[in-house]
Amino acid sequence: MRAIIAPEPGGPDALVSTDLPDPQPGPGEVVLDVAATAVNRADLMQRQGFYPPPPGASDVLGLECSGTVAAVGEGVERWSVGDQVCALLAGGGYADKVLVPQGQLMPVPDAVDLVTAGALPEVACTVWSNVFMIAGLRPDETLLVHGGGGGIGTFAIQLAHALGARVVTTAGSEEKLEVCRSLGADVAVNYKEQDFVAEVEKATDGAGADVILDNIGAKYLPRNVEALATEGRLVVIGMQGGATGELDLGTLMRKRGAVISTTLRARPAEEKAAICAAVVEHVWPLVADGTVRSLVHATLPLAEVAEAHRVMEASDHIGKIVLTP
Amino acid sequence: MRAIIAPEPGGPDALVSTDLPDPQPGPGEVVLDVAATAVNRADLMQRQGFYPPPPGASDVLGLECSGTVAAVGEGVERWSVGDQVCALLAGGGYADKVLVPQGQLMPVPDAVDLVTAGALPEVACTVWSNVFMIAGLRPDETLLVHGGGGGIGTFAIQLAHALGARVVTTAGSEEKLEVCRSLGADVAVNYKEQDFVAEVEKATDGAGADVILDNIGAKYLPRNVEALATEGRLVVIGMQGGATGELDLGTLMRKRGAVISTTLRARPAEEKAAICAAVVEHVWPLVADGTVRSLVHATLPLAEVAEAHRVMEASDHIGKIVLTP
Repeated sequence: MRAIIAPEPGGPDALVSTDLPDPQPGPGEVVLDVAATAVNRADLMQRQGFYPPPPGASDVLGLECSGTVAAVGEGVERWSVGDQVCALLAGGGYADKVLVPQGQLMPVPDAVDLVTAGALPEVACTVWSNVFMIAGLRPDETLLVHGGGGGIGTFAIQLAHALGARVVTTAGSEEKLEVCRSLGADVAVNYKEQDFVAEVEKATDGAGADVILDNIGAKYLPRNVEALATEGRLVVIGMQGGATGELDLGTLMRKRGAVISTTLRARPAEEKAAICAAVVEHVWPLVADGTVRSLVHATLPLAEVAEAHRVMEASDHIGKIVLTP
Repeated sequence: MRAIIAPEPGGPDALVSTDLPDPQPGPGEVVLDVAATAVNRADLMQRQGFYPPPPGASDVLGLECSGTVAAVGEGVERWSVGDQVCALLAGGGYADKVLVPQGQLMPVPDAVDLVTAGALPEVACTVWSNVFMIAGLRPDETLLVHGGGGGIGTFAIQLAHALGARVVTTAGSEEKLEVCRSLGADVAVNYKEQDFVAEVEKATDGAGADVILDNIGAKYLPRNVEALATEGRLVVIGMQGGATGELDLGTLMRKRGAVISTTLRARPAEEKAAICAAVVEHVWPLVADGTVRSLVHATLPLAEVAEAHRVMEASDHIGKIVLTP
């Protein structure tokens, strides 16, 4: 089968198409014929050599996909050959076929086509696990989500809004801000022109954000802590603005706040299975009825994966970039 | 009634005895005749002007006490005049009488005398709320507690040990380390001579500490994050080593860890009541049967409060310093 790897760290052209043996399912595993995969920022970091796959994971890039069950291993009872599914992966999605632990498969939500479903698992699992399972956002609370125009941002806005929370978001262009507002953001902040701390304060009568979902890291750390409400929770899931920042424990203590830094990919299979099950229970009904969707910026053939990485690196996209083998 | 205040910030001699009108209980409030109060590090900071009482709290120092119910306000049904109790306070304990919201009263545990009970509320509520309610320490996990010789440290060691967790602690003298070991610490680290990160690693086969209870703050922040286990939780409850430190979000992300900075005093009355109720349920039985006790370093008359502050500032004490009006 064809698969995309990055044997040497580098730019988008470091991505190489190679031929690998078709995967065979072991006990509890399923092999999918991939219909679509999608680009995540972690893929760019992996390509650059900064984010090696966790132990045991494939060297092939790709953290999510949709597809059709091609083979099932021993002990797999919930899934059968021919089922259309999508999957959260530790790697391997940029390929014709992929091996998946059964707990990381999810049905394709009603009303979503198979290709678009390939852009759902990462955003749905990331947002649900971080904003709701870890940070416990409640309907009467305020979420600040940075990177509102990205795949995770657009999904987080919709989901938090649908579940009754107030949403403040940041993005870097008027076009993105407009999309964020249309998705349900109560306040959309242009981070190039406005101070998000002041805007959060204004939007919450001085109370601050109960939960912050952040992809910037060090650069935003002091201001994120400032923007937190009493008992607020800052969840850092990306470090586009560096890793090592200044933390004022005094400010955090006055707010009785928490700073959590986490990643989905390295979690053990049983935690991923629990997340997928929670997503199917809580998020899929909202996707099926059209309340929440994964915005797709572009769909490219897998052969154009280098171009897809360039588009994400330029950061002008809104929503997900899908690849079809 | 006599009460101790610090009208001007300063050293131990800034503490002044004054005469105040006896408090009267409002609805849901109780007045105690104070039998004993105890010194907390927060009292030293308040005396120095760094830790003003939260809005609505008394200017009189003292975050805990024991005593006898002298009067009850409207709607107080659980407590009657003459009951012997101890109490978690937002302030006011360094006095002959103190006003307490009814939810912050706790019975004196069986087998504890009334004076010693005055040294229980802060350590019990601080350790239970932070280590167990917030950080969720489980019996199969490892707790690292800094300041093992202090009131909170000695209590945290005993409680975590009693509930089945492995305990690593730090202290600054052989005498303190010996006490920590006798209380149930599996590993006692002399922070003046040993690197606690290396010692935690050794004690846990490289896994790290699942929960860290820290009173140092900025100075220990990078090393505390290093010492955390996967999914570890660092709870900062003191800043003896400064407020603003360096946080490596990349290391924290690899561990999927959390940094929480919190304080008990400023929490709303209903949260304090919930903590007190949980302490009575989970901690008091272990105090009553002698498994866990509040170590008392010295008991001084309230008139010698300046000396009591000097003793705590010297940091040679082991356990609590009790004051009796």
